[in-house]
Formats: sequence, structure tokens, C-alpha cells
Amino acid sequence: MIVVLTGGTGGAKLIEGLAAEIDPAELTIICNTGDDCVLHGLHISPDIDTITYTLAGLIDDAKGWGIKGDTFTTLEQLGRLGADTWFKLGDKDLATHIRRTGLLSERVRLSQVTGHICRALGIKAAVLPMSDDRVETRLRAGDKELTFQEYFVKERWQPMVRKVYYAGVVKSKPAPGVLNALGSASGIVVCPSNPVTSIGPILAVPGIRDALKETRATVVGVSPIIGASAISGPAHKLMSASGWEASALGVARAYADYLDVFVIAHEDQSLKAGIEELNIRAVTADIRMNSPADKQRLARELLALIRK
Amino acid sequence: MIVVLTGGTGGAKLIEGLAAEIDPAELTIICNTGDDCVLHGLHISPDIDTITYTLAGLIDDAKGWGIKGDTFTTLEQLGRLGADTWFKLGDKDLATHIRRTGLLSERVRLSQVTGHICRALGIKAAVLPMSDDRVETRLRAGDKELTFQEYFVKERWQPMVRKVYYAGVVKSKPAPGVLNALGSASGIVVCPSNPVTSIGPILAVPGIRDALKETRATVVGVSPIIGASAISGPAHKLMSASGWEASALGVARAYADYLDVFVIAHEDQSLKAGIEELNIRAVTADIRMNSPADKQRLARELLALIRK
Repeated sequence: MIVVLTGGTGGAKLIEGLAAEIDPAELTIICNTGDDCVLHGLHISPDIDTITYTLAGLIDDAKGWGIKGDTFTTLEQLGRLGADTWFKLGDKDLATHIRRTGLLSERVRLSQVTGHICRALGIKAAVLPMSDDRVETRLRAGDKELTFQEYFVKERWQPMVRKVYYAGVVKSKPAPGVLNALGSASGIVVCPSNPVTSIGPILAVPGIRDALKETRATVVGVSPIIGASAISGPAHKLMSASGWEASALGVARAYADYLDVFVIAHEDQSLKAGIEELNIRAVTADIRMNSPADKQRLARELLALIRK
Repeated sequence: MIVVLTGGTGGAKLIEGLAAEIDPAELTIICNTGDDCVLHGLHISPDIDTITYTLAGLIDDAKGWGIKGDTFTTLEQLGRLGADTWFKLGDKDLATHIRRTGLLSERVRLSQVTGHICRALGIKAAVLPMSDDRVETRLRAGDKELTFQEYFVKERWQPMVRKVYYAGVVKSKPAPGVLNALGSASGIVVCPSNPVTSIGPILAVPGIRDALKETRATVVGVSPIIGASAISGPAHKLMSASGWEASALGVARAYADYLDVFVIAHEDQSLKAGIEELNIRAVTADIRMNSPADKQRLARELLALIRK
């Protein structure tokens, strides 16, 4: 069993590769839910949805989120009714949020809801939220406090962030199955997701970081940063805001207490020595995933590192 | 100011006629909310929606509910995700329910939500829910207890109903503006809606029936029954289940304490004397409304009775 820690877009690419290389039934995917938000009264889990749509073959590859070929009839009408429409909800995509919200209102837990939706979409991998408890990533920028979606989608990650924290995380518990999966995994992959707002919230759920430190499985991470910039999104900005160096070395330092192997870009070859000083094996690879072949190649390299 | 008490379909036809005959800004429409339901976590107000869609020119005339030309993309996807799909929610229609649910979750009251949606749709008439409090019409049939939508839509009004009651009505209050509208109206129209499940819940909200008895305005009703059958829907069945005769005379008896004039079908001429014994003026007319001309003609006749 391979266990994967992930956020949305970058992680989804690698997961697509992994699911093509091994039986998806051998994958357990632990998703960040710190980006979850309630919009129009609907509970939206952007990272879970990106992962499930990817595994179901529904993802809109061009956008990296949502369902391919989706229409926006309801959203347009919501706009006419005076609602905010900065968060783009397609008609098919809305069914996921409506179904999730309906089941949550009947006191079904998020992990069960996610399992239900995955089965309905024919997904064989186990997709788990990091927690069934509400954890909300919040960003302080100037005198404003933003949720992740407000920062990322509405403000297009332009505000200068001073601080990031995970509201509710201290009292949260890992979702059923999470600790067990980490303890019994044959290998663990930390996706090239944002260390602060994707992997960070998962690690902050009490018990998860300890399980990663204690597991006998090899823990392999992939850097989301090449040089001083994220492959996509604001990881470098948020690393700096959180007091970490915006580089693969900074990420290695943030993960040093539990990571066994770190895969970085060939361009970052010069960082290898610094990473190995942290007792992490550093491996260079082509970590950009632009095509299905790229995703599968990187997945194969990670699986080989785990098997070694 | 003309005040109208209404349910969905039958009332909507008459309201379409009234809005064509007088300035819609002179109309205040008090809607039944006993049929409201929560489906997929969304607050649905079927009667309010039928009336607002009618006034906005959006109603699907052929079906008598929903928005014309609407698509069902989200509902189909909800079906794939294992949700019940017996209640047909179109994509544009869904925007109304999502907007309403979102605003209600922010503690905006139903009357304010309704006003907001009406303004957004360019509606000049005032549309008021009978109450901001939750009142739920429930029907006992055999050993089952059904909500109105379960009985009407899911079971196609086939179960034999033994009893109808309005859960929550005793503690409910009329929505802001309702009593004031009834007290200051120049005329009041009771639509040819189901006396048990459309007009009944409105009358049961404490204060509304007394306001109808006390108002100086002429109160004119239109029978929803011709002979022994409802013009549409299960009014005759539910009259019998509630201990009333399934006829225009039965409806007159149910409304006798506040009604001044009752408009019945020409075919029910023989019931006139019985109705007038109740101190209600009985008038025969063609009360079937199959065309816009029918709706306007009946509306003109009612307005003439009010002005007299």
C-alpha cells in the first residue's frame, strides 16, 4: 500500500501518474482540507475534488480543477441573483458540493461522504480527508484575514501574506484510517504540493506528523519549488511568509524530521549537499509534469526509490 | 393595494392575470410555505418560486413549475452520485435554492431572502412568505407520514390521506408585512389553491385568520373545485380527508368566517343558495384558466367584485 499526502493541482498530476503505474486499489490518498470553504451554504472541498475528479478521469486538465466540458448555468443565474461568482462552480461540479452538503447535514462524516462519492465515481483508490473536523487555513495580509480560497482564487495570490495559521487544527483528529494507513504503508509519497497551505495543514493535525516520524515505510517527497519559485502557485511566497527559505532546501528543512528521500529538480543539484546534511537522501529528477508521460515517469522513479 | 393569498400552480395563473390587469406594484402576494422542504441540504420554497417565476416571466408554462428552457445537468450528476432525483431541480432553478439556502445560513430571514430574489428578478409586486418560521404540512397516509412534496411529487398524490396537519404552525408568526397588508388592503383575493395544503397553512398562522375577519377590505375567493373534483391536483381528496365536503360548497364552509364573495363555476350554479346561506355572496364565472386571456378575464371579474 502506497500512501500519498497531497493538496490539489500539483499532487493530482503525480497521483495520476501513480494510479497509472500501480493498481489504484493500492493507493491511499490523504487530502488537505484546510482549503475547504462554505460558499452559498455549500461545503466545498477543493483538494478532495481535484483528486477525485483526476482519479475518475473527469478532471479538466487545461484548468487543473473542475470537470471537463462542464457548463456554468447555475453559476450565471446565481450571479443574476446577486451572489458572488468569483469561485467558478460548474453544473456537474455543483452536484458534488450539493451531495456533500446534503450528506453532511444528515451528520454523515466528511470521510464517509468522500468514500461515498468516490465509489459512485468508480474510484478504486482510498481518498481520505486529513480530518473529519473543520480546519481552516487562514492568511493574514495587511490588516485583512483571508481564507485560502479568498487569497488564492478571489485575490489571485497577490496580497503580501504576513502569517498563515490553521484555525481549529489543535482540536482536530485525523480522519478514520489515516494513522493506520501511515503505520502500515509500504511507502509514503509527499506530493509537490504547497508546503504551507497543502502539506502544512495535514502535518498539523495532531498525530499525523508523529505517525510519519514513526512509520517504517520510506517517506519520499517531491519538491514543489525549482530555484526560488514554485512550479505553480504561491508556494514560494508562502514559504517566505512562514519564515522558510523559498527553495527546495527550505522545503527539505520544513520536512526534515520525517522525510527519508527528497526529489528535487536537476537545476537544484547544488542544493543536494545541504539537503543531505539534514539526513535526507537527495535525488535529482525532472520534476515538471506537463504530459501523462512525465507524470508516469516521475511516479516510476518514486516507486523505485520506495522499493529500494 | 390588492392582497392575494396563494399556493403554487392555480394561484400563479390568477396572479399572472392580476399582474396584467393592474400595476404589479399594487399587488402584495402572501405565499404558502407549508410545502417548503429541504432536499440535498437546500431550502426549497416551491410556492414562492412558482409565483416569482410567474411574475418574472420565467415560468415553464407547460409544466406549471420551474424555469422555461432550464437544463438538468446538476440533477443528472446528483443521480450519478446516488442522490434522490424525484424532485426535478433545473440548473437555473437550483440557483434560486442555493441563493436562498446561502442567505438563510447567514441568518437572513426568508421574507428578506424572498424580497432580495424578487428585486434581482425585476419583480415589482411584493411577494411575502406567510411566515419566516418553519411550518411543515404533514400528511398521514396509512402508517406513513409524508411531507407535502413527498405526497404530491414523489407519491403522485396516490396514498389515501387520513389526516393533514401543519407542524410548527402554533408557534409561528406572520412574516413582517403580512398583517399590515391584510389590514390596509383595498381588496383581498383568495386564489383557487388547495384549501387544505395551500390556503390552510396560511390561515393557520396565528393572527392571519383574525386579520382576514377584521379587515374592511372585500375578501373574494375563487373555488379550486368544480363539481366534485379539483381543477388540478388533489384538493378534493384532501378536503374529504380533512372532513370537508369535496365541492365548492365545502370550500365556502371552510372559508365562511372571513369570506365576502365566492366565485364558483357556472356548472356549480346549484350550490349558490347553500353558499349564500353562509352569508357569502356567490357569483358564477368561467373559473378555468387555460390561456392568458382566461387569466386576465377572471382577474378583471374579481377586481370588479372588489371595487363594487
